[in-house]
Amino acid sequence: MKPGAGLERLSLNTATVRGTDLLGMVDACARAGIPWIAPWRHLLQEVPAERAARAIRDAGMRVSSLCRGGFFTAPTEAERQERLEDNRRAIDEAATLGAEVLVLVCGGVVDKDIRGSRQMVEAGIAVVGPYAAERGVKLGIEPLHPMFAADRSVVNTLRQANDMAVRIGDADAGGTGTVGVVVDVYHVWWDPDLEDAIEASRGRVLGFHVNDWIVPLPDVLEGRGMMGDGHIELRRLRRAVDAVGYDGPIEVEIFHQGWWAKPVDEVLATMVKRYREVVLEPAT
Amino acid sequence: MKPGAGLERLSLNTATVRGTDLLGMVDACARAGIPWIAPWRHLLQEVPAERAARAIRDAGMRVSSLCRGGFFTAPTEAERQERLEDNRRAIDEAATLGAEVLVLVCGGVVDKDIRGSRQMVEAGIAVVGPYAAERGVKLGIEPLHPMFAADRSVVNTLRQANDMAVRIGDADAGGTGTVGVVVDVYHVWWDPDLEDAIEASRGRVLGFHVNDWIVPLPDVLEGRGMMGDGHIELRRLRRAVDAVGYDGPIEVEIFHQGWWAKPVDEVLATMVKRYREVVLEPAT
Repeated sequence: MKPGAGLERLSLNTATVRGTDLLGMVDACARAGIPWIAPWRHLLQEVPAERAARAIRDAGMRVSSLCRGGFFTAPTEAERQERLEDNRRAIDEAATLGAEVLVLVCGGVVDKDIRGSRQMVEAGIAVVGPYAAERGVKLGIEPLHPMFAADRSVVNTLRQANDMAVRIGDADAGGTGTVGVVVDVYHVWWDPDLEDAIEASRGRVLGFHVNDWIVPLPDVLEGRGMMGDGHIELRRLRRAVDAVGYDGPIEVEIFHQGWWAKPVDEVLATMVKRYREVVLEPAT
Repeated sequence: MKPGAGLERLSLNTATVRGTDLLGMVDACARAGIPWIAPWRHLLQEVPAERAARAIRDAGMRVSSLCRGGFFTAPTEAERQERLEDNRRAIDEAATLGAEVLVLVCGGVVDKDIRGSRQMVEAGIAVVGPYAAERGVKLGIEPLHPMFAADRSVVNTLRQANDMAVRIGDADAGGTGTVGVVVDVYHVWWDPDLEDAIEASRGRVLGFHVNDWIVPLPDVLEGRGMMGDGHIELRRLRRAVDAVGYDGPIEVEIFHQGWWAKPVDEVLATMVKRYREVVLEPAT
């Protein structure tokens, strides 16, 4: 396949669509001229990673990231070890798929101790870092919106994610370059420190996700809108991330009942149109 | 009335209860040994400010704050002027009530321009600052949780609120000491910069609100839980705010259908119990 005009960086994060399996999504991307895809792991239960990798390669596409590893926080040592083991499996799957990045959703608060939970996350990433480095997989710490601090991720600002990536990289020379950050506009757009934090992340940005913040928020989890439907200055943020040297894929990751109910080709057509209109530079 | 043991700083924010008017809430507080109250403005439609002030004084109680002014952002100059006029009315009401602080919920994003909206907020506070200072009313900028950035407040971290208070105070000598910050745990508990931001706010903390973050969040707006039911380390945050010199009232502000459905006396009894158990120092 040949990417559509201007779509060279566009990636479909599979959370955006429903109603077909991973192979169906790959076919739909190929039809739409979308050259990248970012699978969620649960889809690999239906379509094993080797088969998915072959289908994606055969379509002339690439894998921008695998979603997701993480969830390092747990109340007991035994559970934390299980989580680390699951992250090693995720790293193996990312390597098999040829995904450059495993996205980390780091885990929520344990025992009402947000600071201790944050240390647990950092320790966990440091442990699996070398395993990832040996397999050529990068680990992208994705700060999640503060409304997910209790139950999904205690990493809630880009500044914090980047500081963590720097510390882990410094502490473990073998992991240098392995740990970076993923910027999803939905999670960070509100941050008064965002521009400075993006600048501080220069050279460590491993992914950029777009969607939009719609009001009223239909649902905390399933309220992410299509680009252009909300309040986020997508073009400005894309420029800021580009300006610190990120030239990799741009994933569209939307969670919204309305879009899930539509045929995949229709969602992809809208996504391509909006990507051109509100993410890329205006057509000349 | 005489405050209950250890309740000298406890205040009922009226958003916590329903089913009675402001006078009924004052009576209930007096019965429960709660010496402070923080009315929302809409209650003054039913019970005029003069009458409310007298009832509160007659009960031997005081007003910790009036909720709320703000909403400075608007697409047109005419609308912005209306908002300023409404803030002047709120300041007058606060003065009549004897409230030391008017809490500011600053307003959401206009025209997809979060940076411009933030400037609009700062300009608005600077305009009404001298009016407040003349009437002996302080303006407390309350950073709201980032999930409210689009529709309620573009002030989303304590650091940002404090920086704004410092700039407005510096710019307008007449307003120095008039503009400060209000710390509500629900809005700021997740912030990795929180301890440093509290330290930076030394001398400018005008209020401290407690409640809890419950999971799963029942609702973005009406999902604030009772102290002890969620993930926030209330005692630690209360100590941090005390440590920078804040010794004023501690408001309980909960928005939750379950508590609204209960009799006021029952809500207040639970609130007093939890305040002693998880906000104050452990009983010796």
